[in-house]
Amino acid sequence: MDIFAILGCVIGVGFILTAQAMEGGNVTQLMQPTAAMIVLGGTLGAIVGSFPVGDLKIAASAIKEVLFPPKVNFDSLIAELVGFATQARKEGVIVLEKVAKGASDLLLTLGLEAVADGADPSLVQGMMENQIGQLEEQFTRASKVFEAAGAYSPTFGIIGAVLGLIQVMQNLSDPSKLGAGIAVAFVATVYGLFVANLIFIPVSTRIKANYQQVMLAKEMMLEGILAIQAGESPALIERKLQSFILK
Amino acid sequence: MDIFAILGCVIGVGFILTAQAMEGGNVTQLMQPTAAMIVLGGTLGAIVGSFPVGDLKIAASAIKEVLFPPKVNFDSLIAELVGFATQARKEGVIVLEKVAKGASDLLLTLGLEAVADGADPSLVQGMMENQIGQLEEQFTRASKVFEAAGAYSPTFGIIGAVLGLIQVMQNLSDPSKLGAGIAVAFVATVYGLFVANLIFIPVSTRIKANYQQVMLAKEMMLEGILAIQAGESPALIERKLQSFILK
Amino acid sequence: MDIFAILGCVIGVGFILTAQAMEGGNVTQLMQPTAAMIVLGGTLGAIVGSFPVGDLKIAASAIKEVLFPPKVNFDSLIAELVGFATQARKEGVIVLEKVAKGASDLLLTLGLEAVADGADPSLVQGMMENQIGQLEEQFTRASKVFEAAGAYSPTFGIIGAVLGLIQVMQNLSDPSKLGAGIAVAFVATVYGLFVANLIFIPVSTRIKANYQQVMLAKEMMLEGILAIQAGESPALIERKLQSFILK
Amino acid sequence: MDIFAILGCVIGVGFILTAQAMEGGNVTQLMQPTAAMIVLGGTLGAIVGSFPVGDLKIAASAIKEVLFPPKVNFDSLIAELVGFATQARKEGVIVLEKVAKGASDLLLTLGLEAVADGADPSLVQGMMENQIGQLEEQFTRASKVFEAAGAYSPTFGIIGAVLGLIQVMQNLSDPSKLGAGIAVAFVATVYGLFVANLIFIPVSTRIKANYQQVMLAKEMMLEGILAIQAGESPALIERKLQSFILK
Amino acid sequence: MDIFAILGCVIGVGFILTAQAMEGGNVTQLMQPTAAMIVLGGTLGAIVGSFPVGDLKIAASAIKEVLFPPKVNFDSLIAELVGFATQARKEGVIVLEKVAKGASDLLLTLGLEAVADGADPSLVQGMMENQIGQLEEQFTRASKVFEAAGAYSPTFGIIGAVLGLIQVMQNLSDPSKLGAGIAVAFVATVYGLFVANLIFIPVSTRIKANYQQVMLAKEMMLEGILAIQAGESPALIERKLQSFILK
Repeated sequence: MDIFAILGCVIGVGFILTAQAMEGGNVTQLMQPTAAMIVLGGTLGAIVGSFPVGDLKIAASAIKEVLFPPKVNFDSLIAELVGFATQARKEGVIVLEKVAKGASDLLLTLGLEAVADGADPSLVQGMMENQIGQLEEQFTRASKVFEAAGAYSPTFGIIGAVLGLIQVMQNLSDPSKLGAGIAVAFVATVYGLFVANLIFIPVSTRIKANYQQVMLAKEMMLEGILAIQAGESPALIERKLQSFILK
Repeated sequence: MDIFAILGCVIGVGFILTAQAMEGGNVTQLMQPTAAMIVLGGTLGAIVGSFPVGDLKIAASAIKEVLFPPKVNFDSLIAELVGFATQARKEGVIVLEKVAKGASDLLLTLGLEAVADGADPSLVQGMMENQIGQLEEQFTRASKVFEAAGAYSPTFGIIGAVLGLIQVMQNLSDPSKLGAGIAVAFVATVYGLFVANLIFIPVSTRIKANYQQVMLAKEMMLEGILAIQAGESPALIERKLQSFILK
Repeated sequence: MDIFAILGCVIGVGFILTAQAMEGGNVTQLMQPTAAMIVLGGTLGAIVGSFPVGDLKIAASAIKEVLFPPKVNFDSLIAELVGFATQARKEGVIVLEKVAKGASDLLLTLGLEAVADGADPSLVQGMMENQIGQLEEQFTRASKVFEAAGAYSPTFGIIGAVLGLIQVMQNLSDPSKLGAGIAVAFVATVYGLFVANLIFIPVSTRIKANYQQVMLAKEMMLEGILAIQAGESPALIERKLQSFILK
Repeated sequence: MDIFAILGCVIGVGFILTAQAMEGGNVTQLMQPTAAMIVLGGTLGAIVGSFPVGDLKIAASAIKEVLFPPKVNFDSLIAELVGFATQARKEGVIVLEKVAKGASDLLLTLGLEAVADGADPSLVQGMMENQIGQLEEQFTRASKVFEAAGAYSPTFGIIGAVLGLIQVMQNLSDPSKLGAGIAVAFVATVYGLFVANLIFIPVSTRIKANYQQVMLAKEMMLEGILAIQAGESPALIERKLQSFILK
Repeated sequence: MDIFAILGCVIGVGFILTAQAMEGGNVTQLMQPTAAMIVLGGTLGAIVGSFPVGDLKIAASAIKEVLFPPKVNFDSLIAELVGFATQARKEGVIVLEKVAKGASDLLLTLGLEAVADGADPSLVQGMMENQIGQLEEQFTRASKVFEAAGAYSPTFGIIGAVLGLIQVMQNLSDPSKLGAGIAVAFVATVYGLFVANLIFIPVSTRIKANYQQVMLAKEMMLEGILAIQAGESPALIERKLQSFILK
């Protein structure tokens, strides 16, 4: 589990509440269920309205990947591909049929099976690139849902504040209630900025960051499979794949 | 009907009005016809001024597609294309002339007819790509109209608020009217943010999201038709098309 | 004349002033020549400083095209190109020299003359693409001038408001003048938002929208001329050009 | 000298100060050295921190080009290139060695010398494109420095205003000083918006606009030199180059 | 050490504090540890939540490069590459094996070794481009972390201000405390804008600016190595590389 993904929110909230307490502020005064309803309910509505159900499911399952990010081990991936190359050289590409199912990634399975079947190189490349393109598309969608949530929530915070102020304004005659009323109104603003800046935008950014590692691995798989099909030597393939890792 | 497209707005408005009621707010106080006139009338004016009538019609008809989104069934599309490929293999491409009219999509009809006529592959590809390009253009325009509406409406909300405040300022001498006046002014701001964040921006985003599925299907049609023309085996074509769907 | 281009501004201003009147506001109170001077004078200065004189002239003449948008008749354009193709087939491309001058568009003239002269296809394509590129450049510039005006004017509205508030603040001791002073200051904000959202941004958007139709026509001309030069059959050329129009 | 580049700022400041005077405002009240220090000093600091010294020098020298923009005479450029083509045709490309030094532009000199030396066409193209790419890079950097200054300065205006307000708040007990204090604070905001919208952003925009003409000329030089090397006829070269100018 | 990278912040802070002192402001009044906790703690939390630990390490080590920017000496790089070319011409590419380790850059070592090994040109190019791509990726990530910090920090400044105002509002009944309370609240805003505009955004911008020089050098290395492998003459290679430097 990527503890840092949660730690960020904890650090942010921790510092801010501590500062608030040091200034003699009361944390309970920041607990306003109606403000939370406006910000979270409004954002939920805007998101449900903006994205097809399928995208929302992808986004929901992306949270799991943020907490438990896919571990990409480039060394073992290179070793695996070099292993396939060695086998294919010794026993012919037909042997790849047998090892395909046991490959560490579905993309490798697809590529190896196609090579074993004697598919045209351009077909193997096309099929693998289609899969990579769709995966990229999916990451992008998940990231966009949270990006949108991060853009909507501060706005609903402002809506909450303005709605609060409207009510406050009705009671201008009683100044003693004025301050407390405005305080309540402002809590919605804080909520909107909080969930955007400590949850939604970080999640969106992290999905994109995690995905760059995954995409690099996929690109290496593609390069490796095509090199195996072209009958390149395992040593050469290893060298080629190593060049994807910055020295 | 994609109930979720409407549900989003309902959820957002529901949560916010409930919260408002819980805080003892009066919902009728949020009903200000003049504020609605400023926000909706201003946005309408800006949109009519910004886009040619043709674009506005496209945008209007896109609402229908948001509520009743085009169902893209990739499995049946692949089956259809594989069916055409099988027929063409058995009876020659000339048979495609007969089945073209009954194809599930006008783009397929156009492609199949061209193949049956013995058109050059580059012509078939060019013609289908032109059609796809124009379709993409149309989706983009519809989406841009709502995107613009979502950008204009909060601004008109602010105009409404400022106009309201100007009037309030004329009566500074009577503080008892001050609060109510400011409250009315703020309602325009809320309206502007509401229609932008619960209607216009979600509709714009959803048009783009829906269109990605459609575009993927069109790309598969293009790939399939070209493969049929090239005389590839139905099994190979199926495999190729399947690679567009993420495993 | 594209009445809608003006209608947008009329609708927007109409709704807003009506709403203002319904709220009992006085429209004359929105007439502040100094606010107009700050917003329009400031925006003019920023635009003159930002763009070379040539770009400003292009932008000025683009207003005419917004009011009287170039009518693009795709059917007659296709018919014209098919006509040229038929003549060229019958009488040889040399005949295009005679008809070139009478073509409906300067780009067609240029292309037909080049074909009649026996210029290399890559030269014909290069020359036509250069012309199209320069035209696109010009549309883009005109659009950017208004886009910049739409970005500058709200800022000058804020400058006007702040300048107004500064003066108001000097007279804090006399609260009776306070409200009126703030009201005057706010009018500049309204002006800035008004001209941006009902004039400058719509004009910029409309120039871009109009230009997409024109660019599509130019692309069809290029495709048609090249097909004529390649000696393709009129029927084929018609089919190709029709594919640019979405079915 | 491009008088309009300065005129823009004069127009903007002129209209605004006139409006201010018409409203009975005192221009001296807008003279706040400390506000200027915060806005200009802060912006200077941010810029010095953001860009390497080399970029700042490029930006400084770009100001000169804004005031005295490079005059691009397309007609004489075409005539010059056609002249070189004619000479090369008559006396062989070796003659270009002699005329290269006298060419109107260093890029022409480089290209002509390379052609005279019998360099490979792809090398001539590569070398010229590298030069053009570096020039574009330099324009872009100069433009970005001013763009950044235009983005920083309003922020420092706000910092100045907030700092001013903080001091004002310390003296809330004496309302008579309140207004004047707030007025002073707001002047920083005005300064920030002023320098951004009447100096920094216009300069950045103008650098980009000027550079488009220059880039077009460079592209024509590249096209011309390559055509000369390819031994194309002067008439053809002229025709090709003319197509870069919109009819 | 690039003293200017620090100087920027010093200039900005210096001018602003001087201006503040000139206005009779007390600098100690700007020292609010709780405001700093909210802004810096919140930004830290948002950044930790947004980026994988690996990216944060890259960003941290990029600070060192901002202070001690990589010196790129294009003249000595060209001389080095021309030297390799001369040796390779005289003694064959096999000699590059020996000199590779002593090259001034790891990318040169990788390229020279590959050339000495007789690797295919497309492999040499592919491997070098992969390395350059990964390096670019790393620069981009470092820059993005600071860019994000610069976007988060003003928001946390606003959160701090709103939290402060909420507390102030609780004590509306005691106006004597009001001003001081608001002043404290505003300090958070100033902190947020300060660290964003004088630290985070400048660092992000500077990383990008420094990296453009480095990337140009890498591109020259790639071009040079490929030319050496192609057996081009040292004089030609020098000429080619010189064209990367604007005259």
